[in-house]
Amino acid sequence: MNIVYPRAAGVLLFLMTVSGVSAIEPVSKTLISVEQNIRESNWECKGETHEGAEFSIIKSTLHGGKQEGVDIVTIDNGRLKMIVVPTRGMSILGVSMGPLRLGWDSPVREVVHPSLINLQDREGLGWLDGFNEWLVRCGLEFAGHPGIDTFRDNTGAISEQRLTLHGKIGNIPASEVTVSVEPGPPHILRLRGRVDEISFYGAALELQTEVSTTVGSHEFEIRDMVTNRGAESQEFEIIYHANFGPPLLESGASLVVPIRKVQPMNAVAAKSLQGFQQISGPVAGKKEEVFLIEPLSDSQGDTLVLLQNANRRLGCSVTYSLEQMPFLTIWKNTALPRSGYVMGIEPGTNYPFNRSVERKAGRLKKLSAGESAEFRLAYTLHSDEASVREAAERIAFLQEDFEPQVLPEPPGEGN
Amino acid sequence: MNIVYPRAAGVLLFLMTVSGVSAIEPVSKTLISVEQNIRESNWECKGETHEGAEFSIIKSTLHGGKQEGVDIVTIDNGRLKMIVVPTRGMSILGVSMGPLRLGWDSPVREVVHPSLINLQDREGLGWLDGFNEWLVRCGLEFAGHPGIDTFRDNTGAISEQRLTLHGKIGNIPASEVTVSVEPGPPHILRLRGRVDEISFYGAALELQTEVSTTVGSHEFEIRDMVTNRGAESQEFEIIYHANFGPPLLESGASLVVPIRKVQPMNAVAAKSLQGFQQISGPVAGKKEEVFLIEPLSDSQGDTLVLLQNANRRLGCSVTYSLEQMPFLTIWKNTALPRSGYVMGIEPGTNYPFNRSVERKAGRLKKLSAGESAEFRLAYTLHSDEASVREAAERIAFLQEDFEPQVLPEPPGEGN
Amino acid sequence: MNIVYPRAAGVLLFLMTVSGVSAIEPVSKTLISVEQNIRESNWECKGETHEGAEFSIIKSTLHGGKQEGVDIVTIDNGRLKMIVVPTRGMSILGVSMGPLRLGWDSPVREVVHPSLINLQDREGLGWLDGFNEWLVRCGLEFAGHPGIDTFRDNTGAISEQRLTLHGKIGNIPASEVTVSVEPGPPHILRLRGRVDEISFYGAALELQTEVSTTVGSHEFEIRDMVTNRGAESQEFEIIYHANFGPPLLESGASLVVPIRKVQPMNAVAAKSLQGFQQISGPVAGKKEEVFLIEPLSDSQGDTLVLLQNANRRLGCSVTYSLEQMPFLTIWKNTALPRSGYVMGIEPGTNYPFNRSVERKAGRLKKLSAGESAEFRLAYTLHSDEASVREAAERIAFLQEDFEPQVLPEPPGEGN
Repeated sequence: MNIVYPRAAGVLLFLMTVSGVSAIEPVSKTLISVEQNIRESNWECKGETHEGAEFSIIKSTLHGGKQEGVDIVTIDNGRLKMIVVPTRGMSILGVSMGPLRLGWDSPVREVVHPSLINLQDREGLGWLDGFNEWLVRCGLEFAGHPGIDTFRDNTGAISEQRLTLHGKIGNIPASEVTVSVEPGPPHILRLRGRVDEISFYGAALELQTEVSTTVGSHEFEIRDMVTNRGAESQEFEIIYHANFGPPLLESGASLVVPIRKVQPMNAVAAKSLQGFQQISGPVAGKKEEVFLIEPLSDSQGDTLVLLQNANRRLGCSVTYSLEQMPFLTIWKNTALPRSGYVMGIEPGTNYPFNRSVERKAGRLKKLSAGESAEFRLAYTLHSDEASVREAAERIAFLQEDFEPQVLPEPPGEGN
Repeated sequence: MNIVYPRAAGVLLFLMTVSGVSAIEPVSKTLISVEQNIRESNWECKGETHEGAEFSIIKSTLHGGKQEGVDIVTIDNGRLKMIVVPTRGMSILGVSMGPLRLGWDSPVREVVHPSLINLQDREGLGWLDGFNEWLVRCGLEFAGHPGIDTFRDNTGAISEQRLTLHGKIGNIPASEVTVSVEPGPPHILRLRGRVDEISFYGAALELQTEVSTTVGSHEFEIRDMVTNRGAESQEFEIIYHANFGPPLLESGASLVVPIRKVQPMNAVAAKSLQGFQQISGPVAGKKEEVFLIEPLSDSQGDTLVLLQNANRRLGCSVTYSLEQMPFLTIWKNTALPRSGYVMGIEPGTNYPFNRSVERKAGRLKKLSAGESAEFRLAYTLHSDEASVREAAERIAFLQEDFEPQVLPEPPGEGN
Repeated sequence: MNIVYPRAAGVLLFLMTVSGVSAIEPVSKTLISVEQNIRESNWECKGETHEGAEFSIIKSTLHGGKQEGVDIVTIDNGRLKMIVVPTRGMSILGVSMGPLRLGWDSPVREVVHPSLINLQDREGLGWLDGFNEWLVRCGLEFAGHPGIDTFRDNTGAISEQRLTLHGKIGNIPASEVTVSVEPGPPHILRLRGRVDEISFYGAALELQTEVSTTVGSHEFEIRDMVTNRGAESQEFEIIYHANFGPPLLESGASLVVPIRKVQPMNAVAAKSLQGFQQISGPVAGKKEEVFLIEPLSDSQGDTLVLLQNANRRLGCSVTYSLEQMPFLTIWKNTALPRSGYVMGIEPGTNYPFNRSVERKAGRLKKLSAGESAEFRLAYTLHSDEASVREAAERIAFLQEDFEPQVLPEPPGEGN
């Protein structure tokens, strides 16, 4: 992903629309809109606060190979920089702040256009052909493993459907995308996108996404809203599949998470349940290990999860509400870099089993007609020892006096 | 669909090629051509007759979300306006004339680019992900329900193929598109498009479409030609899936059709066979009802079908030849607007059962090598009581003295 | 394909970047690059040697129908002209030299964009919807017949995968494409393209392609390199599916090939094994015949295969190493032109059976992590009797004193 930044920068030479913002003035811009028939190929907004902090928002277009025509938006708050991909469901390709990076090195090297993805390929694993983002949402009609699920069709009859891995939302181009800069202080940069996972005689789930960050901050926040636009109640699932590679992931790095209950998802994970929070370096032939966690929360219902590097001077933590997302999946794939050395920290409404399993286990949520569900995740990038330690201590405080329940065996597909 | 018109109009600001036609001069323009390597992104032609009637033809491009890069052509004959979508097989997105509209409000809100449609998705229901046109052709190799059909492959062996709902033609971009304005009078606006449903070791069916209308008229005509470009005889099916929502479809609206024979297609329809021509308002949870009709014709072999609103001041009628399309399918989906409150009036060479059923029932047509079949449908928009009544009376005349044969039970998939 | 040349020429009017090369100066140009975020829509380079030979390289974009946005590169060395399609895996659409043409007339008339191809369609025959190139590579993870194969997934478990006909590589847009003109003499025109067939938890096979020709030459060479970018060893297959129609293919034309062993692939071929090297004119209803050949080689390990027309004044020969590609498939499809009157001469690492068959037969190759395999094919266009005869004599010399082994029955899918 590190190769993406120069790309975006290169686009500056071809800017067609430039809005200079010498001091902080409010900016509000529609970048993509089905309703207004708009798509800005290249646009940018640069600014400086009265305190001299510089920031920018750049909309550019990717070219070549499988990424021809893919839209990206690069937000630079003067301290951290992130790339959002409207064409791929508003996924966040990566975030960087000095030496710290949220992201990983997938074998998939391009930001693949959804028109070249066949989710049904490889027995429902086609999603993996475009998988390289730091954060991709899984969902919305289904978010887990591929395979047959049964459902009631529009005639009321029971039908079978072959679900595909992690669902569709990450491969749907956003329909409406806007950016804004708030005059402040605080000076907030905000990117909103609407992604429709809507069919006829099918789910009609609308995702309103927002990512925002304050100029000069080492934090950003995701606020999403999923709405059932259909006339009848609708099952849904959402999992925030955030993936970490180096420099955070390295031998000696560790995951810090307040645990109420933990269980391995598969047999491989069962064998390494003990000490699963400790990260090893890349291991040839290493298979994926998945752990299912019910975290602990504070009095507000919020939990906090931290990934810290070996010397505990770099870290990334996320806080979110367990009411919104009670289930946390940890995906360790500490294979050789060429296979993708990566760990997923994945808060969700459920675990990534096939929907049929989640339904049976009672983890599947529904939205009645017109109903919405909100999801908030606040991410903090830690770049010094004190900041890392403070996050770790907050998590230790949540865990204090609570003995985690450890289930040593996988639940099995029958849960 | 009502939001589409402003979109097209917005495009006027960016016109790259403008041909002003002050009085009626002949116009002939290639908008899209594989052979000439042409695709006009934006083009328009405006004119005025000596009698002062204004008309226009506008080619524009849609942007944003799933409709990025979709070509549309808007034809305004001074009285009615229609939007044709070359990128989606020359489907007609909608037609409007004052308060009258042919079209409906599908949950699918974008004019989805075929590159984002997977017809095989949802067990062959992927077609529904882009379904929102007023008129979409089903066909050509197959036009009905999804499911396994057997066929002889190129080695002469019997093979199985999973057919997909309503076939491919509605998701194939047109290869050659031209418009013309005839000097007249009558001043005829004509849009032609060729759509190839052609593969190697497969069907080689070519669709030549034409939609034409006269300046100032409340009528338009579709003239299509399907040609077998293959070296061997080829089965084919075509169904004109025309879909009506408000204002024509409303509580108290009714379908007027001269019936030789009628039969429900499914169990739900069997229960509401009595009075199926009467339209109710939207009903929560209402399932689709499908009726199979063999209409009556006049001495020329032509039939006439009318949909009239509650106060019988608005209507749309279609006349076509029963020799070309002996079978008429009526699809009532009077669910809540969010589920798509809509009725389909669907003349075809056959019913929309799976091709295996149609073959067995003897309704499946074949074209020998090089052979063509022609299809003509003339649509009239009625906007006053007299005009609606006259159409209804013509249909009553066709029905006169003929007692419809009513089969109360569905034929079943075995027909 | 003959209609493509005027198309490319028409593009000249819209050139946006022109580099005139009055005499031979070195040229090196990146046309497409994911890493540099580049895609040249239209570019050309024309030149003249000191000896007065003219040549050109033109990058253009196709428009209309299913070929909207497809990139092509036309190389004219002053004597022969070829079109390469980066968007379709660097396939060679066609080659021409005076009256001689390498190519055929597929029922598929457009250069179809991969975003409109569903390889899984028609039970794995979707590849045929875009099949019209002179030379298309089959591969890389699998290159043969569709159908279930079993494989070990990333957890080490045995899984099933539905393979699709001839694999994916021919429908993947190239990620990096460069052209160069070497100052020489000899003045070499060179086009390189990298195509990634790479997924997460799947094959990570990279194809580096190169096609080169010298100004004024009647020859060109393909040099490819397949590299396993994954962390574990990976099976792969590659078949160079080169397809010949008129004028080379005609009644009385013949294939000249030095045979160690020949066997029919299917029952139809078994019946016509005798004299299979003789070409008939188009025959209505003729089914495909496929022959499996292990050719003979010279002392360097190279073989030579020739297709010559009826009067033996036109021909095309190819020489390549049997070490690289020990198996040669001949595909005769001498049906009526509308069905595609064509013969494939297809050197490969294996035969085009399903991968499960090739594995069992011991013909399946593997690359260890990081390992590469190279493939070289040198094509010569013959346009006079002496040149054709000389190639035929070289092949006769290879066959001399060697009695081909003829297996009269197909090996069957169990091999």
